[in-house]
Parts: sequence; structure tokens; C-alpha cells
Amino acid sequence: MHLFSKEFKLSKQLTTIHLIVLYYLLAVGFSTLLLSLPIFHQDGVDLTFIDILFTAVSAISVTGLTVVSTAETFNAYGKIAITVILQFGGIGIMTMGTFVWVLLGKKIGLRGRQLIRVDQNSKTLSGLVKLMLQIFKIILLIELVGTIILSTYFLTYYDTWQEALLHGFFGAVSATTNGGFDITGSSLMPFANDYFVQFINIILIILGAIGFPVLIEIQELLKGMFKDNGETYRFSLFTKLTTFTFFGLVLIGWLLIFLLERNAFFADKTWHETFFYSLFQSVTSRSGGLSTMDVNDFSLPTLLLTSVLMFIGASPSSVGGGIRTTTFAIMLLSIYNYAKGNSSIKVFGREIDQEDITRSFIVISTASLLVISSIIILATTESLPILAIIFEVCSAFGTTGLSMGITPDLSTFGKTVIMLLMFIGRIGIFSFLFLLRGKGTKDVFRYPSEKVIIG
Amino acid sequence: MHLFSKEFKLSKQLTTIHLIVLYYLLAVGFSTLLLSLPIFHQDGVDLTFIDILFTAVSAISVTGLTVVSTAETFNAYGKIAITVILQFGGIGIMTMGTFVWVLLGKKIGLRGRQLIRVDQNSKTLSGLVKLMLQIFKIILLIELVGTIILSTYFLTYYDTWQEALLHGFFGAVSATTNGGFDITGSSLMPFANDYFVQFINIILIILGAIGFPVLIEIQELLKGMFKDNGETYRFSLFTKLTTFTFFGLVLIGWLLIFLLERNAFFADKTWHETFFYSLFQSVTSRSGGLSTMDVNDFSLPTLLLTSVLMFIGASPSSVGGGIRTTTFAIMLLSIYNYAKGNSSIKVFGREIDQEDITRSFIVISTASLLVISSIIILATTESLPILAIIFEVCSAFGTTGLSMGITPDLSTFGKTVIMLLMFIGRIGIFSFLFLLRGKGTKDVFRYPSEKVIIG
Ligand SMILES: [K+]
Ligand SMILES: [K+]
Repeated sequence: MHLFSKEFKLSKQLTTIHLIVLYYLLAVGFSTLLLSLPIFHQDGVDLTFIDILFTAVSAISVTGLTVVSTAETFNAYGKIAITVILQFGGIGIMTMGTFVWVLLGKKIGLRGRQLIRVDQNSKTLSGLVKLMLQIFKIILLIELVGTIILSTYFLTYYDTWQEALLHGFFGAVSATTNGGFDITGSSLMPFANDYFVQFINIILIILGAIGFPVLIEIQELLKGMFKDNGETYRFSLFTKLTTFTFFGLVLIGWLLIFLLERNAFFADKTWHETFFYSLFQSVTSRSGGLSTMDVNDFSLPTLLLTSVLMFIGASPSSVGGGIRTTTFAIMLLSIYNYAKGNSSIKVFGREIDQEDITRSFIVISTASLLVISSIIILATTESLPILAIIFEVCSAFGTTGLSMGITPDLSTFGKTVIMLLMFIGRIGIFSFLFLLRGKGTKDVFRYPSEKVIIG
Repeated sequence: MHLFSKEFKLSKQLTTIHLIVLYYLLAVGFSTLLLSLPIFHQDGVDLTFIDILFTAVSAISVTGLTVVSTAETFNAYGKIAITVILQFGGIGIMTMGTFVWVLLGKKIGLRGRQLIRVDQNSKTLSGLVKLMLQIFKIILLIELVGTIILSTYFLTYYDTWQEALLHGFFGAVSATTNGGFDITGSSLMPFANDYFVQFINIILIILGAIGFPVLIEIQELLKGMFKDNGETYRFSLFTKLTTFTFFGLVLIGWLLIFLLERNAFFADKTWHETFFYSLFQSVTSRSGGLSTMDVNDFSLPTLLLTSVLMFIGASPSSVGGGIRTTTFAIMLLSIYNYAKGNSSIKVFGREIDQEDITRSFIVISTASLLVISSIIILATTESLPILAIIFEVCSAFGTTGLSMGITPDLSTFGKTVIMLLMFIGRIGIFSFLFLLRGKGTKDVFRYPSEKVIIG
């Protein structure tokens, strides 16, 4: 009957998560060092430490909030360095680490496999290395195809093939890892009327944010179709729930942005402009962070809605942040089933586990406390409009990277708060709570339980 | 193991809550009728239907948000009529109904007792009538003492004893029921430097908002002390938890308001002004709604903090609204114990029931969805600053009644949204969810349970 009962067999998970966070911190340190090297900078650029650190955290957490223009600050090599950092952040340091280990022919011990397990939230230790390699191969394949398509297409945009290739490569990596960085100087705004570029970006963003388990199950489905062994492939409850929620959020966001802006920003736009602006904005608020327009052109309700969408974020075990789709779905299902008076939550022919319900609520409550506290703190330390602060905080926690433009205007303290939010958003509320965790007390003694009056 | 298991013995609760809501709706109808009578208006006043309805809902839900000035709209009789409506709303229609029935010598059937039980969230049917009478007597006694003290003191403020009595009576009822209405035309601002009036108001607000069960247990404690039967009185877990949380919130609010405003609003104030302004503001944000100052004089972070405090609200089974203190306390305890890795929540020598934990999260999630949706909807329909909208929505849901002054500027649709929030805030998220409830399905069949990845 008790809340936290099943959790405590996993005492090793504690040290494991500490190690993962340590790895992430090391990656931030390494990235900061890398980005501070003058050989990666444009001529005459002089960066402060806090701005380099901010860029590193933003890249490792694949958020894309920037205090300096990537286009004007970093040279071609610097831009390539950023794509490397985005890979480390997006696919997960553990996956990268495993790959390097496998590449070097080293045997991966149980400890190493455990690290990966927690980072990607997998369920079993068996076949984990294979799984990580699979993820890595899938993402790399997606990025390769993206680079080829975009670079070829960009030959019409840029003078040299080198420039087209750089833009195609950077764009494909930034979209697939949901990195949100741009080297155009104004995100995807130059392509506001190029629906082909937008379409490719939408596909890449979705493939990165939909969750690695989903990609792997799709791959298994495809493999099964070629083999045709007569068995019907069965997707996991997780894949069904997260995919349904992900596309549900995209559709609802699309529709609401259209409705809220039809007499405002879209008033003088054609139907196809309206169609693509609202679609792209809805997709990018899942976690992408690239934008085809200045979000300041949107009206108040759209910006609040986008903040909520960013707070929800992408699928678990994806390149995205936020409270994650499944958490949000389970909250809605719990409320619905409670209001209906049902005694359990049935969905897609399965029942939701009680422990998952408790976890969802813990994640949502902690995230809300974190985001609201951050908003009030920044409202105290920064002289900036409240709407821009709400938007920025939700964007950082969702590792989305959209901004009303206040990021460079933040104080050093303000930048630190946003950095922490990006970091927690990326490692997830769960790992964050584990970080604070002590050894925990098993019930060596019990008190009588007594009910109180609620709500 | 399942979420909603214990709930469904109480199939009668469903109809009971429907009836309670029906009673509340009837009270709103009756109050609207009453307040529309010209004999209660000042000369030359012409009210629209929506404004009368809004005043009725605000009074029945003891919120205190107003679209017209009570002082300038209603004459002395009208003001007394409002105190009657505040009593109906504050002490609860069920309590009043019981009292009338008992007064008329009628026997109260099981059905009638059930109505009261749900409204006051009591645990057993036995001794319920006695309990209700006890509550009624306690509140009336508090109001009587308050009236005597304030009226006597007001003799120095007002020319005639009739005026002093009216102000003393109205003030005592408005404070005790946490009604938040005023007949000064500017809340308690005329007493901004009268710490005696503020002190009395603070006491009355707290007595109303601390929760009826707490008052009754204190009364029992006092009785026991006179009898001196050697037994130590044991407060219930509910009383301990809600009282601790209530005063914890008051203290934290007091401290934070002081810190946030010490270089702003308090910069040119004396220490005793600072002391009382911040104390009163913290107490009134629990649910009181009276104010010794114009909240617009506060800075952004204080207004956001106050919004959060109003959203949390007062104790359950009190005159206040919001998600309620115990809900908030259980959320914090859950997060803390989860992060610590404890397998159960121990507090005050008792364990929190798993069902109460689930309930708390359901209440918080539903309330958050409701409040955020309302903010986005009002941001769409009203041309008002976002901060004022956030503040107004939290104030309505917490049935607090503080406002940055936009209430009269709301459109008819906007007023309707605020009315719904006040109503839901008063009946509570729980009754609100019950309203939506169907018959519910018991588990006639089960699906296999499958875990998913969370946050
Ligand atoms: K991003
Ligand atoms: K009130």
C-alpha cells in the first residue's frame, strides 16, 4: 500500500545517478574549455567566462538559449565544435562513452552498463550495449540523411559548397539533437517561406524528441516486416502512450496557436503561411527551439500557451526536457479516471502501474515548485517584463531554447539560475531528486496511519 | 495497491455532493434576488444583472472581489443583507440549514446529516448535528465579541453610535467569515496606522480560516482543562498538520514580503509600519481579502508570491478556499520523503495515508490546470496586464478577494470566469471533481499492468 515501496531495491541507482551527473558536469567543464579556445572564435571576439559557461551548458543540455550570437562569435571550426558538444548532450554522454569503449575494444563492466541504464531509463541490463549502439547508429543515420538533404538543397542558398555543407550539417545536427542553436544569426527565420527546409526540420526535430525507445521499436517493426515471420509486432505501452501524447500536444498546440493568432499575427498572412507558422511553432515548443519567426510577434495568450507546452516538453529518453509527455499523460488520465470514479487507469489495453502514478505527481509537483520559485527569484533580481521571464524559465526547464530575447540581458545571477534550470531540465526531475537523496530509511518502525482532510 | 480503491463504498456521497452544490446554487439565486431589491440600494443606484450576480457569488463564496463599491451601492439595510449572505456562505449553507431545522424542532433524517457531513468533511455521522450547532455557536460568539470590541472602539472614529455599530458589525462579520467585503470604500486602508483594528482583524481572519475542526478541538481542550480529569488532550493529526502549515505559511509570507519590499514599498516606512503591513498582507493572503494598502504599491515578486499564497489558501473545512493547507503540506512531505528515500511519510507521530497522498496530488494537478487555463483564457478575452490577471485568478480560486483593481474592468465573459473560479474555490476541487463524476466502473475485468518511463 505504501508510496515508495518498490523503489529501494535499487540502492545502486543512487551512486549511478551521482556518477551520471558527474559525467554531465565534466562534459560541461570540457565544453567550456573547448569553447574558450581562441582558435574557435571569430576575429576580435572577446568572451566573458560566464558567457562561455552559459553556451557550454546550453549546448550540453541541448537547449539553445544563447547569450552571444553563435554565427558572429564562433568561426567554422567553432561551429563544428558546437555540433560535437550537441552530440554529447543530445545522445547522452553515456551512449557516447559506451561507443568509445566499444570502439576501443574494451569490455564494459556491469558498472558501465548500469550508468547507461539509468541515463536512458531502460528496464533491463541485458543487451544494453547493443541497444546503445543501436541508438547511436539511428541518430547518426538520421543526421547523415538530414545533412545530405539540407546541404544539397542549400547549394541554391549559399555561394560555395563549403558554406552549404556547413549550414546543412550544423542545421541537421541542431534539429536532430533538438539543440536549437543556429548559425544563420536569426534561427530559421530566413526560411520562413521555405516550406521544404521547415518540413525537413520538423521531421528531424520530431525524430529526436519522440524518444529513443520509440525509434528502436519502429526499427524492430520494420525489421520484422522484411522478415515477415507472421507475428504481429506489439508496441510497448510506453511507445503508445508517449507517441499519442506527443502528437496530441503537437495537434492541440497547432490548433490553439492558429485560433489565438488568426486575428493577430496571422491576420495579414496567407493560408499556407498560417499553416506552417503555427505547425512549426507547435512542433518546436516540444523541445526543438528553432524558430521561423520572432516569438515577440505573438500575442500574450500564445506566449503563455507556448510556455505551458515547453514546460511539458518532449518524450522521456529523448533529447528533450520538461516534465515529459508520459508524466503529463498520466496526470490527465489520473484526474479523468478519478473524476469518473474508476478504480484503475486502463489505457491501450493495459493498466498504469500505481508507482508510475505517484512518480508522475512527484515530478509535476517538484517541477512546478522549481519553475515558480525561479520565476519569482528572477522577478526579484532582473528588471525584465514578467512575461519574458515566465517564457524564459519554461524554455530553460523544457530545454527548448525559445526566447523573447532577454537571455543576453540577464545578470550573472540570472544566467546562473537559467543554467541550473537547463541542467535539471536535461537530467530530469527524477535524477535531480535522486541527487538530493540520502540513504533513505526502510520502515524499521511504523506509526499508526491517520487520515486528514484534503482540498 | 490501487489508486482509487477505498472511494467507492461511498456511492451516496455522489448525490450528496450534487445536492450541496444545488443548495449553494440556490443560495446564489436567493442572494441575487435579495441584492437586486431597490430597498437595499443607495438612491440613484442602477445595477446590471451581471454585477448583482457577481456580488452574490462573491458574497456566497466569501471571496470579496467586487465590481461595484459596497459602500456606495448599498444602504445600511443592504449592508446588513450582505452580512447575512456572508454567514450563509462562510459557515456553510448546511450548517445554517441544520440550525434552522433544529430551531423549528424538526427531526433531522439521515439524508440531512449526510449533507452536512460532506460539506464540512467530517468523518462520522454520529453527533453531527451537535457538531454543527457547536460550529455555529463558536462562529457567532467570535463575531459577537468582534462586533462589541470593534463597535466600541469605532465610537472614536464615527459620529453616531449607529454608524460605529454598523461598521463594527460589518467589519467583524467580514473578517470572521473571511468575506473580504468592506463598507469603508477602501478596505482597511483607513486603519493603515491603527494597529489595534488590524490586530483584531488578524485574530478574526485567523479564527475563520484555521478550520472548524481546529476550533472545536481547542474548545474541547479548554473544556477538559476546566474539568481536569487527568487525561492529556490529544489533538488530531489534521489539526496539527493544518495549524502548523497555516502558521508556517503566515510566517514565511511575512518574512518574504518584508525581504522583497524592504528596499521598495517599505523603504520610507518606520519599523512598526513595515512590521504590520507585511504581517497583515501575509495573513490576509491566506483567505481574508481585506487589505491595509493598495496591493499595486507592491513590486512584481511580492505580487507573484502573494498569488502563490492565495492559490494555496486556507485550511480545509474553514471559510477559505484554494487547494488548502493540508494538500500543500502533503505535497511537500511527499517530495521530501521521496527525495530522502523514505518508504512512508511520518509526521507528528503518525503516518500519512496513501489515499490522502493520491488525493492531494489530484487536487493540486486539477487546480493548476484550472488556474492556468483560466489565466490563458482571460489573457485572450481581456485587454489587461498579465500580472493583474494572474493575481485576480489566484485570488478568485483562493476565495481571497485581493485585487490589483481590474475586477470592474472585466468583460461579462471575464466576470463569468471569475465567478466560476470563486464557486469552485469555495466548494473545493474535490466536490468539483465529484460533480463531474459518473457512476464509475468497479474492476469487472483487469488488464495486465505495464510500467512506462516517467520524467
Ligand atoms: K532545444
Ligand atoms: K475572502
